[in-house]
Amino acid sequence: MDTDSVVDAGALLKRVQRIFEQSGMCFRDALLIADSLVAADTRGVHSHGVLRVPDYVAKLTREGVNPAGSPRVARQRAAILVVDGDNAMGQIACDFAMREALDRAAQFGISAAAVRGSNHCGALFYYAMRALTRNMIGVAATNALPTMAPWGGRDKILGINPLAVAIPALDEPPIVFDAAFSVSSHGKIRVYHQKGVPVPSGWAFDEGGQPTTNAARALSGLLQPIGEFKGTGLAIIMGMLSSLLSGAAFGTELGNMVDGPVPGRDGQFVMAIDVSAFEDVDRFRSRVDGIIRQIRACAPAPGFERCYAPGELEHEIAGRHRRQGVPLSAATLAGLDGCESALGLR
Amino acid sequence: MDTDSVVDAGALLKRVQRIFEQSGMCFRDALLIADSLVAADTRGVHSHGVLRVPDYVAKLTREGVNPAGSPRVARQRAAILVVDGDNAMGQIACDFAMREALDRAAQFGISAAAVRGSNHCGALFYYAMRALTRNMIGVAATNALPTMAPWGGRDKILGINPLAVAIPALDEPPIVFDAAFSVSSHGKIRVYHQKGVPVPSGWAFDEGGQPTTNAARALSGLLQPIGEFKGTGLAIIMGMLSSLLSGAAFGTELGNMVDGPVPGRDGQFVMAIDVSAFEDVDRFRSRVDGIIRQIRACAPAPGFERCYAPGELEHEIAGRHRRQGVPLSAATLAGLDGCESALGLR
Repeated sequence: MDTDSVVDAGALLKRVQRIFEQSGMCFRDALLIADSLVAADTRGVHSHGVLRVPDYVAKLTREGVNPAGSPRVARQRAAILVVDGDNAMGQIACDFAMREALDRAAQFGISAAAVRGSNHCGALFYYAMRALTRNMIGVAATNALPTMAPWGGRDKILGINPLAVAIPALDEPPIVFDAAFSVSSHGKIRVYHQKGVPVPSGWAFDEGGQPTTNAARALSGLLQPIGEFKGTGLAIIMGMLSSLLSGAAFGTELGNMVDGPVPGRDGQFVMAIDVSAFEDVDRFRSRVDGIIRQIRACAPAPGFERCYAPGELEHEIAGRHRRQGVPLSAATLAGLDGCESALGLR
Repeated sequence: MDTDSVVDAGALLKRVQRIFEQSGMCFRDALLIADSLVAADTRGVHSHGVLRVPDYVAKLTREGVNPAGSPRVARQRAAILVVDGDNAMGQIACDFAMREALDRAAQFGISAAAVRGSNHCGALFYYAMRALTRNMIGVAATNALPTMAPWGGRDKILGINPLAVAIPALDEPPIVFDAAFSVSSHGKIRVYHQKGVPVPSGWAFDEGGQPTTNAARALSGLLQPIGEFKGTGLAIIMGMLSSLLSGAAFGTELGNMVDGPVPGRDGQFVMAIDVSAFEDVDRFRSRVDGIIRQIRACAPAPGFERCYAPGELEHEIAGRHRRQGVPLSAATLAGLDGCESALGLR
């Protein structure tokens, strides 16, 4: 079994940044992509952390993603822009898009950017949270490779197309929602499969569209959406916002889970909403605090210790990991070692 | 048991409009609110149809909602506005807000309006769909009386705070998503309770936070969210957008299911996104068509006949009901009769 090692977040950032520089990225872009991955591990979202590094290095050095891709504004009107990511990693394109959106939201009260020419962008909370220091609400969504069927179907044509929303609080940690519209993820089912144990019921359908707890059949089958048609409806909406507004690929146009995505065809959608355009900022933020405290004071249901506001648990974890170090599995650390060896860094 | 009668949609509209005029509303507002309810029945969304008329008449004539309320822009900056609904019905406030947002989106590419001083606004698809004829994407959300607990809790402090999104297609019916973040609704559980049958598992918790299929315990208990913390997270986000940006009441501030809402304290959020700011409109709309056709062509899972795009089934139902009449239950028709008698209309 994997044994967790604990590593310092700052040291991890520098280590991963060097790997990406050695993969052909400039200092600043390498730092950004490393920061997005380490931020995920720090918040306990290891599925989008540095375990992705070997995949990303492969994309950048062999699979056609441009390590020197430089996003640009391809189209704009007032509070709206389309960003062409120039086949950079999604982190580079989404960061560019969100910075543009934040500046325009300060002027117009709201702004949205649709991204094309992009690739995998890591965890979405990273872009949504950019809005917080400017007293704005941040929103980010992405298209994803298809792993679901529309509700009532059995063809794998729909991604789990996640959504992140960050809302600033005052003294409390911010509201940070970041979730896909499937019950579980493909990655979690892979873990069950490796361990040789069945997946919980409600997670997956087999290839024929029947519910299954068999991990192998789940992997070749379909992820189950949350809330039946509600989850697939939300995934369709987020996919359309992320792909069709910018001209990026949607669902099956992007590729499949076996062959992977076509480089430079992915799309995202980011939005910033300036609280000060609507409301006194302190009043808004202290009302957010009030709701967070009401949630925290909620009597727990049987089997639970307490309730958490969206992102509160991840905020606590991040504080602990920043102080005590980030736990990483032996496999994840071996992945970093392998990249460093292959790139001549050790 | 209730037997359905079939009534002509146009005749129903006039009948309901007269009831609202007699309740103190001007011709135009009475027509608008009648249209929002009849539109819901026409699309088969009877929970938000004319069965609400007696409730609404009570609000307008006895419970403190202002039948002559006149919404106004309370605050604005470029693409953003706050609407004070002046304690009108939510339909009047949301229609005003959406019209303003559509005009501003034509100028800025995107616009959002937060509504306060509002009341129950009926089905949200009605506002989101306003965007369609202008080749825009429409979004609407509302705060609701608390019927859920945050995930892991058992205090009834969170509404099911629904979201609607409408996206224009070309030759296909538009994408229309409209759903709350609970698995079922309070109204559906009331129907099971009246029939004396248990509710499906997964719909409700009892007052202690334990899953229950007992309809009476479900009614005094809690609705279950879709996707556990994902559903409650989305409800918290939609509630914050609908309440905190405008200064409206959130959750328990609005009231409870026993005593009802405080008049004029409810809030909503609407947004319009102009497709033409991002992309060639015909290309966008024909790509939406392509996705709808891909969904329709999806092989069905066991127990299903076919897949539907969001809103497609309701579009088919609406076509049928416009041609053949809208089915209404005897109880709903008796409610209209009762209002007419009480208002001296018969």
